[in-house]
Amino acid sequence: MRVGSVIHIISFLLMFLAATMLLPIPFSLFYHANDAVPLLLSAAITLIIGFLGFRFTEFDRDLRPKEGFAIVTFSWIGLSAFGCLPFILSGAIPSVTDAFFETMSGFSTTGATILTDVAGLSHGLLFWRSLTHWIGGMGIIVLSLAILPFLGVGGMQLFKAEVPGPVTDRLTPRIMETAKILWGVYVLFTAVQTALLMFAGMNLFDALCHAFGTLATGGYSTRNGSVGEFNSAFIDWITIAFMLLAGTNFSLHYRFLRGDFKAYFRNAEFLLFLSLIGLATVLISADTLIVHYEDGVHGFRDTLFQVVSILTTTGFGTADYENWAFSSQFVLFILMFIGGCAGSTGGGIKIMRVHVLVKFVFSEITRLIHPHAVVPVRVGPHPIDREIVAKVVGFFIMFVMIFVFGVFVMTFLGLDMATSFGATAACLSNIGPGLGAVGPTDNYAHIPAFGKWFLCLLMLLGRLEIYTVIILFSPSYWKK
Amino acid sequence: MRVGSVIHIISFLLMFLAATMLLPIPFSLFYHANDAVPLLLSAAITLIIGFLGFRFTEFDRDLRPKEGFAIVTFSWIGLSAFGCLPFILSGAIPSVTDAFFETMSGFSTTGATILTDVAGLSHGLLFWRSLTHWIGGMGIIVLSLAILPFLGVGGMQLFKAEVPGPVTDRLTPRIMETAKILWGVYVLFTAVQTALLMFAGMNLFDALCHAFGTLATGGYSTRNGSVGEFNSAFIDWITIAFMLLAGTNFSLHYRFLRGDFKAYFRNAEFLLFLSLIGLATVLISADTLIVHYEDGVHGFRDTLFQVVSILTTTGFGTADYENWAFSSQFVLFILMFIGGCAGSTGGGIKIMRVHVLVKFVFSEITRLIHPHAVVPVRVGPHPIDREIVAKVVGFFIMFVMIFVFGVFVMTFLGLDMATSFGATAACLSNIGPGLGAVGPTDNYAHIPAFGKWFLCLLMLLGRLEIYTVIILFSPSYWKK
Repeated sequence: MRVGSVIHIISFLLMFLAATMLLPIPFSLFYHANDAVPLLLSAAITLIIGFLGFRFTEFDRDLRPKEGFAIVTFSWIGLSAFGCLPFILSGAIPSVTDAFFETMSGFSTTGATILTDVAGLSHGLLFWRSLTHWIGGMGIIVLSLAILPFLGVGGMQLFKAEVPGPVTDRLTPRIMETAKILWGVYVLFTAVQTALLMFAGMNLFDALCHAFGTLATGGYSTRNGSVGEFNSAFIDWITIAFMLLAGTNFSLHYRFLRGDFKAYFRNAEFLLFLSLIGLATVLISADTLIVHYEDGVHGFRDTLFQVVSILTTTGFGTADYENWAFSSQFVLFILMFIGGCAGSTGGGIKIMRVHVLVKFVFSEITRLIHPHAVVPVRVGPHPIDREIVAKVVGFFIMFVMIFVFGVFVMTFLGLDMATSFGATAACLSNIGPGLGAVGPTDNYAHIPAFGKWFLCLLMLLGRLEIYTVIILFSPSYWKK
Repeated sequence: MRVGSVIHIISFLLMFLAATMLLPIPFSLFYHANDAVPLLLSAAITLIIGFLGFRFTEFDRDLRPKEGFAIVTFSWIGLSAFGCLPFILSGAIPSVTDAFFETMSGFSTTGATILTDVAGLSHGLLFWRSLTHWIGGMGIIVLSLAILPFLGVGGMQLFKAEVPGPVTDRLTPRIMETAKILWGVYVLFTAVQTALLMFAGMNLFDALCHAFGTLATGGYSTRNGSVGEFNSAFIDWITIAFMLLAGTNFSLHYRFLRGDFKAYFRNAEFLLFLSLIGLATVLISADTLIVHYEDGVHGFRDTLFQVVSILTTTGFGTADYENWAFSSQFVLFILMFIGGCAGSTGGGIKIMRVHVLVKFVFSEITRLIHPHAVVPVRVGPHPIDREIVAKVVGFFIMFVMIFVFGVFVMTFLGLDMATSFGATAACLSNIGPGLGAVGPTDNYAHIPAFGKWFLCLLMLLGRLEIYTVIILFSPSYWKK
């Protein structure tokens, strides 16, 4: 392990983080919020430590995948550890546990909050809180489309043949090229959504914060009642549209913007994504439209909004789905696990992986009927390499095991079943709101401190596709 | 598909079933229950139809695995369809749905009941009800140790090298040899447990019924309050011991009885079985001993009893675990999925499979660190064939998917979350009592008719190791 190189890169990121801490200050000044000083102070501390770390270590050009896992994992931890300084130094969230939870939830684009009064937070901090989503989302795009395939992790390996990506044996400048292109798309979408939200009546501040929360599939709002509080059909529809975009593979957006207009509809995963949304909306509408809404259009909009918000793992809310039928709640609960498309900012297992799992099961049944036949697992026309199928299956098993262990830990802390299931799923899949006492109208403030730290670990595991983090717990990783 | 051969074998089983329907009659007469006539009538109908089916079809010696799947699946369905006649003809359970549910629950050794007053059932029918467990358990032993490995299904393939079993390409008389030996063990254990239970104060009738329920890991009792109603520490300990035996691989018992006294402790699965029981008992005792019991020994006994009863998928009860802490309930919920050892009468995923899954995940992590290394999945000293690992993994994925679909169906019928999770898990893993409104002190009477039929399907799927049943839904199975 080349510890120097790891520290070098993370220190560089910290200096970048320090710069982003200055972005909320204009809003802080405009709204006369008294959080400019803590923000400045946090930026200074982060910059100094980042600079020292950067200055006194050296980067080894010959970086191996092994270091990659440590860099990725400790980057997210490092960003959260320093990113929570504004909350602590301002006194807005005095507890280190709570501040770290809120920031990890931000950078991991989860959106689970410990704030009982979101709207009571000062404007500079509110902006910073939403900005952690956006930065996290940027990180995820590069990670899932450029870094993880190189490390042999993540759903995007499945596209190796289809999508241009780094193909060399070492981390090369190629990653930066890919990153720049995709970030361009990300920034463009954020700008367009912000403009549309302002057109729909939001001010610049709210529009930016909600665009950050949407594109990153994060879900932090500036209001206690989330997006629903704006009570605007126009805002709801804009948010639905951009949650859909955020939950889609960003390389498809890139190809679309380059003129390949059929890119989306040639992509099996995207079509499944839409089908799942359609199916879930129909299943839930059967209940919501009959029982809960007199206005059918409104009922359909609210149903679609919650479905898209949860499947993309965003976590914005416009209705309290805990009042809906048990079957509707269970459909949403299942969507929590499935998550967005590979190469999107969404979390969860990912649609592509679920697709491979289903195909794998079918191939096993066929193999039972024809024991001597070779039955490859196909996604679209492409047979998928056995090794990649094994990784997808391994991912699923680990996801289930971590989920089960997570629920056990939560129940052991005294939480009821619904809350334990909801909190674990919502954090592991990076959604935010769950069920029970952490439902869409609740928050995570009441979770015991140990539980909060544990949920932070779940957010990290889920966000970094499990393997990236879990590998650091393996003794053979640390062997020379 | 050689339909004639399939009908021939099932008809033969029906004639056997007709004979077993006579066994409750002595008890019926002794207790002056008025159910001897319906039992005789049921036996006559079953015998005639069995005889006709047997007489007018021919057995094709050259039976292929393909027919095996149909024979096994339709045997269980056929036994249940005729086995429910005594309940219907006596008028004790007039609803066909309820009678079929009760009988399928018996033959699948599940033990889920629709009876609101078990003790109110006449003695002949009570005996018949428990006998369906015992017959089902006999079937499962042959199935898991002789037939399924031949069909390429089931956890026992893992032992192919270790355990003597049929190795030829066709269904041969060898299966009958294996069956006779293992049935010998099964009958011996039943006799010993019956004797011990009588020594502990039960009468012959109760002792036999409870021995049937124990050895088959079924769980039907003769009392409304299950084993707990006898209020006897001695009976509890006997039941715990024999549930343990029933949840163990029967080929280990055979080897032990043949003089290989270390057989159990050389078996990795058996050791894991004990460790799981120990771990779960400790985790739950942390709650039960402090909060729920003043008498520590009694608390420990009740804790161990529920742990063993659920892990072995028996479903007997001596305490209402729904009053215990959420963490205790969740531990029991997880045990519901794990189930007994391969080659036992227990259901669930099976400990051996869970073991392989964990090993598989570890091998995938290692393969990430050393991408070019060959990392076989090992259980004990033996590397496991990749094809078998794929089958275990496929089984797990199907189990999870069927569970999820099952819970969805239950919620769609209007059942709450806890009941839906509990009923689906308890039927798919062949346990019996679940959670919520189908908890240890409740029954399945209130489930809507469609739900009962669906739960019957789950019992069948779980009992026949999923593949055996699901393959019949595959179009390529029915192709010439």
